[in-house]
Amino acid sequence: MISKQMEKYGSTRSCIRELFEFGRRMKAEKGEDAVFDFSLGNPSVPAPKEVNEAIVEILRTKPSIQVHGYTSAVGLDAARDAVAQDLNARFGTHYTRDAFYMSVGAALALTSVCKALTLGPETEFLTFAPYFAEYSVFSTVAGARFKAIPPNPPTFQPDAEALRAALTPNTQGVIINSPNNPSGVVFTEENLRAVAEVLVAKEEEYGHPIYLLSDEPYRELVYDGAVVPHLPLLYKNTVICYSFSKCLSMPGERIGYVLMPDEIDDCEAMRYAVAGAARQLGSVCAPSLMQQVIARTAHLRPDLASYEKNRALLYGALTKMGYKCVRPDGAFYLFMEAPGGDAKAFSEAAKEKGLLLVPADDFGCPGWLRASYCVDYDMIVRSLPAFEKMMEEFNA
Amino acid sequence: MISKQMEKYGSTRSCIRELFEFGRRMKAEKGEDAVFDFSLGNPSVPAPKEVNEAIVEILRTKPSIQVHGYTSAVGLDAARDAVAQDLNARFGTHYTRDAFYMSVGAALALTSVCKALTLGPETEFLTFAPYFAEYSVFSTVAGARFKAIPPNPPTFQPDAEALRAALTPNTQGVIINSPNNPSGVVFTEENLRAVAEVLVAKEEEYGHPIYLLSDEPYRELVYDGAVVPHLPLLYKNTVICYSFSKCLSMPGERIGYVLMPDEIDDCEAMRYAVAGAARQLGSVCAPSLMQQVIARTAHLRPDLASYEKNRALLYGALTKMGYKCVRPDGAFYLFMEAPGGDAKAFSEAAKEKGLLLVPADDFGCPGWLRASYCVDYDMIVRSLPAFEKMMEEFNA
Repeated sequence: MISKQMEKYGSTRSCIRELFEFGRRMKAEKGEDAVFDFSLGNPSVPAPKEVNEAIVEILRTKPSIQVHGYTSAVGLDAARDAVAQDLNARFGTHYTRDAFYMSVGAALALTSVCKALTLGPETEFLTFAPYFAEYSVFSTVAGARFKAIPPNPPTFQPDAEALRAALTPNTQGVIINSPNNPSGVVFTEENLRAVAEVLVAKEEEYGHPIYLLSDEPYRELVYDGAVVPHLPLLYKNTVICYSFSKCLSMPGERIGYVLMPDEIDDCEAMRYAVAGAARQLGSVCAPSLMQQVIARTAHLRPDLASYEKNRALLYGALTKMGYKCVRPDGAFYLFMEAPGGDAKAFSEAAKEKGLLLVPADDFGCPGWLRASYCVDYDMIVRSLPAFEKMMEEFNA
Repeated sequence: MISKQMEKYGSTRSCIRELFEFGRRMKAEKGEDAVFDFSLGNPSVPAPKEVNEAIVEILRTKPSIQVHGYTSAVGLDAARDAVAQDLNARFGTHYTRDAFYMSVGAALALTSVCKALTLGPETEFLTFAPYFAEYSVFSTVAGARFKAIPPNPPTFQPDAEALRAALTPNTQGVIINSPNNPSGVVFTEENLRAVAEVLVAKEEEYGHPIYLLSDEPYRELVYDGAVVPHLPLLYKNTVICYSFSKCLSMPGERIGYVLMPDEIDDCEAMRYAVAGAARQLGSVCAPSLMQQVIARTAHLRPDLASYEKNRALLYGALTKMGYKCVRPDGAFYLFMEAPGGDAKAFSEAAKEKGLLLVPADDFGCPGWLRASYCVDYDMIVRSLPAFEKMMEEFNA
């Protein structure tokens, strides 16, 4: 007498968390050094010191009931002001606090937006593969259909013509994620402009808005001068779902926001609907202390030095071994073709050697693997013989 | 092209938060002293000093990526151990960490449990009126029906015979809330035993479990020696949804748990289904720093002195003025009959005087009002003339 569907969601979990749990158990059994865990996108760089300084300062100066009390459902004015100011300074926009809904992380943000946009079982959300596996969960909980546009190797840039072919009058939203998880690719302005052109044409054709849902937790994690275009400047009906998880290295604190610019169609209805959806999803407000932290730290950027160093080591070593890797311009993921072609088989065999890599089958990209390099540099060094052995075994 | 249902949930919001926002605006316009806000259940007692001490100590001694990183979806072992130990010490139980799912507050906990138990649109959740208004939202988001058993004035104790009449083979859960929001009533062991007896008989009759979903955020807030029975000791199929919001005065931090004892039917399926439902609802893990705080503070009890003082003042003064109040044994709510009989009209008129009281219509109890006395003592003193004037006007 328990929902089979929910039981399945809970028992299968995401394959990422499954690997993470496996790694935890293996470490407990065989020791920390026996496991090379490239599974989880858990930042390895400490939060900027200003984060903890802000916490201590808030505790020291503000009364407890203000620090730990409920906030408005949309979030604290100070947090929303800080986020607006930071974006305005960087992108020349004119956002005000009203455009922001502070959310319990990006997962809730995206789920709420999907729910706000779902009109019935015919509603569709599209995304480009490879994609973050939970997108299909976020869409289906809303009661909508989820469709992925096939991957576009070897660049994995969004293919506007493939998007044109996939759109239907029931498409309410296109989820886009750049820098991309799992590929590490940063979508170019040229390709994004092509995407925007297709969407504008299709909005005209269908006579209703198609929202671009931009999932941007890795916005600030780019290398070699790569630029992440600010999508509202390229396409009017853009809604941004953001998380401070990666930028401020605080994924466990569950703090992010939905940005719904004044310019989007049905703006007021959308803002109410996102708040209503979040409420229905069991959210009361984003964690209050962390909202106050964001009010003081929204302008901070992460220290990318160690990710850059890890990226250079892993990308260099693996390509030298013969792995076919996508050059990662952003995020902290290295995407590689599975030697032998079967990513699940490769990942299973790698587990035996303590090497935890996520097969991209659940990301809509069979045959590829994701390695998170937000890890200890020394672990990467120690892991290289295992990568080498795997290549020998699977490329025979 | 936005979901009308979500827009409605977001624009109407709960009437409590509506009043709270009204109060905020009115304070900004007319000054703090012009508003007597009895609307929100926001604890007025600071968190125990150990909470902030624990935060500072955790920041000082633990590496940032551990403090702010993801935890397992079910939560940190240390947090679940601490909660288990605290309950075992108080109730003689033998819970282990496996029985607990750490959640983003009680709202997510309840929503997840409802979703885990919903088999189809025929599924029903029952509760006793008056009830926390969001229960109907939690049930309907799961896709189930929500039914309230009519209120039982003047004691507002649960009526086992009324429950017997309301149960159907489609009832999957009965939500129970003691100390009660909004009535402040603590359900007696005798009445709870009668409820348990009815449930056992109906489980037998229907051939399937009926879960008692005990929403217990006010468990530790009781006065004059009132006792809150530990429901799993009275009824096997009890699932507890708990929040630290009220006990540790940190409602904004969104930290709570679901307790699913080993003894409940389909225990393993339930635990998976609750985790799966929370995942579907956009939850990744409960806020990580707060989980670590709970690991160190789960045994703390709130300082009830100021609530007791407020309660004595408000209950004493209002009954003297002629208000018919329920003597509040727990929580921090005073429940009173609206003079004149129309609680909404009374509340609207009271707003004009800066007096914010929640009409209990949305709690399934028309004609009654809720006053939250988790407020400043002096505010209560200053509010009394307004109460007096309202009584004169409405009892004419």
